[in-house]
Amino acid sequence: MKKIHRPVVGIMGGSTCSKELYNDTRLMAGKLAARGVVILCGGGSGIMEAAARGASESGGLTLGILPGSSAGQTPPNRWIQIPIYTGLSDARNAVNVRSSQAILAVGGSYGTLSEIALALKIGKPVVTYKTWDLPPPPTGDRGPLHAAGNPDEAVRLLLDLVEME
Amino acid sequence: MKKIHRPVVGIMGGSTCSKELYNDTRLMAGKLAARGVVILCGGGSGIMEAAARGASESGGLTLGILPGSSAGQTPPNRWIQIPIYTGLSDARNAVNVRSSQAILAVGGSYGTLSEIALALKIGKPVVTYKTWDLPPPPTGDRGPLHAAGNPDEAVRLLLDLVEME
Amino acid sequence: MKKIHRPVVGIMGGSTCSKELYNDTRLMAGKLAARGVVILCGGGSGIMEAAARGASESGGLTLGILPGSSAGQTPPNRWIQIPIYTGLSDARNAVNVRSSQAILAVGGSYGTLSEIALALKIGKPVVTYKTWDLPPPPTGDRGPLHAAGNPDEAVRLLLDLVEME
Amino acid sequence: MKKIHRPVVGIMGGSTCSKELYNDTRLMAGKLAARGVVILCGGGSGIMEAAARGASESGGLTLGILPGSSAGQTPPNRWIQIPIYTGLSDARNAVNVRSSQAILAVGGSYGTLSEIALALKIGKPVVTYKTWDLPPPPTGDRGPLHAAGNPDEAVRLLLDLVEME
Repeated sequence: MKKIHRPVVGIMGGSTCSKELYNDTRLMAGKLAARGVVILCGGGSGIMEAAARGASESGGLTLGILPGSSAGQTPPNRWIQIPIYTGLSDARNAVNVRSSQAILAVGGSYGTLSEIALALKIGKPVVTYKTWDLPPPPTGDRGPLHAAGNPDEAVRLLLDLVEME
Repeated sequence: MKKIHRPVVGIMGGSTCSKELYNDTRLMAGKLAARGVVILCGGGSGIMEAAARGASESGGLTLGILPGSSAGQTPPNRWIQIPIYTGLSDARNAVNVRSSQAILAVGGSYGTLSEIALALKIGKPVVTYKTWDLPPPPTGDRGPLHAAGNPDEAVRLLLDLVEME
Repeated sequence: MKKIHRPVVGIMGGSTCSKELYNDTRLMAGKLAARGVVILCGGGSGIMEAAARGASESGGLTLGILPGSSAGQTPPNRWIQIPIYTGLSDARNAVNVRSSQAILAVGGSYGTLSEIALALKIGKPVVTYKTWDLPPPPTGDRGPLHAAGNPDEAVRLLLDLVEME
Repeated sequence: MKKIHRPVVGIMGGSTCSKELYNDTRLMAGKLAARGVVILCGGGSGIMEAAARGASESGGLTLGILPGSSAGQTPPNRWIQIPIYTGLSDARNAVNVRSSQAILAVGGSYGTLSEIALALKIGKPVVTYKTWDLPPPPTGDRGPLHAAGNPDEAVRLLLDLVEME
């Protein structure tokens, strides 16, 4: 029987971003989706919209893990095909991290930092692109953190990580 | 632009069930999936497996909203294409209810009852099939509760409810 | 060393209620608190306010497990001494049930039903007073459900259940 | 009427720590508790135990916000007076942050980082002591972050922050 589980990459980043980061994210998501990767994000604006847009435009599948309990509370961006309404507010970040086989973190601020931290805590691999440059932790090792210098490198790293599953 | 959001029906029920209920659920999920409805369930065994199986066998898309934080903690059944690891334990039932446009409740026990109750609390329509026969609530009205006498009636009711979105 | 864990009874019920149920709940909470029982509730109005009020007036400790992420979103009633802001919306009901050694369910509608159902699912004892009269479940047994005919009987049952811990 | 809400400081840090950090934390929690501050923590070992111990030894009240659904899953340390079983796994960190008026972060690794990040995201003040030395965020400002050079300074900062409520 063919494998039925589908590879999922979570793309995390700020709800506002520069035009350059928006376009880079849309490009990366499109390339991942073209390879059959499901794109998961927080369902909102900024980096989240760019991720869902790039994937949808490439014919891929997009999931938005929303903080609110309904579309009325937190409407998904228009490129989300399947919205999941967690009703968890910011704690939904943990669901994003757990449900992705690898994480791409782009730009952002403290919300993105909390997602990077949660991922590294549970040993989930994170590829960073133009985001936090973390110092080493006070205790323990650095975890599976990969800094990508450009969009192509990020896509290559993520495809490798998802393949390893 | 074409509509990008996809209709989602959540199928709730016990993690153990009779062979008859399993087959009825598989049939109903298959018919819904054949009409383009995404099937969401708790990702486990019993009714949840029957739902994901029927939908996958009909070429549909299946989401499993798991209670654990990883496949190691709560492995999804083999018909789940996209597992969402909530790490919420039983509180994941609320995510199932919120993320479905309509609910089909089949068989089950107190877990299914809590999902029916949460759905009716927030006004989400519920179609019941061979499950709890609830008395009226101590206060307030009965809510959007529809009892189906057979699988075909359940499918028809659910397609109507999802269309109304 | 003396035991440091404190007994906790969760009181669940509707955010609106009759004056009679309000006073009965206030009385029951007061009697439990006078015996050293911490009173946990959802932090809102109606039965939740009556529970916190009765306990606070008797010199007891009151916890409110709120659905919102802050007092701005969901202000606790004025008798809550320690508000816990879960940010989980209705899924906070699961936290209430898990954190209580026994549950008292009074009046209410579907929200209260979901709490009774979650409690019985995990085997947590429930004392009911003027609330849902549940039929037996479609599968499995009825669970640790105790119907109290009057406030004194409810208090007696709860003290016994908490003592058994 | 006297104010019924009680001030709550959340103490966050690793489940393992040096003897020195343990004792510093115990001391800080004790001084806060002696001033009537409720001490909230994750309920586990290491810094969490030191916090609950210091507070309990000073006659204060201690809350442990546990990741599991029951004492069987995640037993609280012996200095926790009221355990709250969230069943949220690591997502319980968000509940800790939301339910504290100010946060003290001590030592730790990525779990503590995620709590600092969540706190700053929602504008909750954080006092750090021998923990992460964060670079400025990629976008936005640094938020209400206060580095304490010694235990007494940390206690003074926290009492000021809680008073401001």
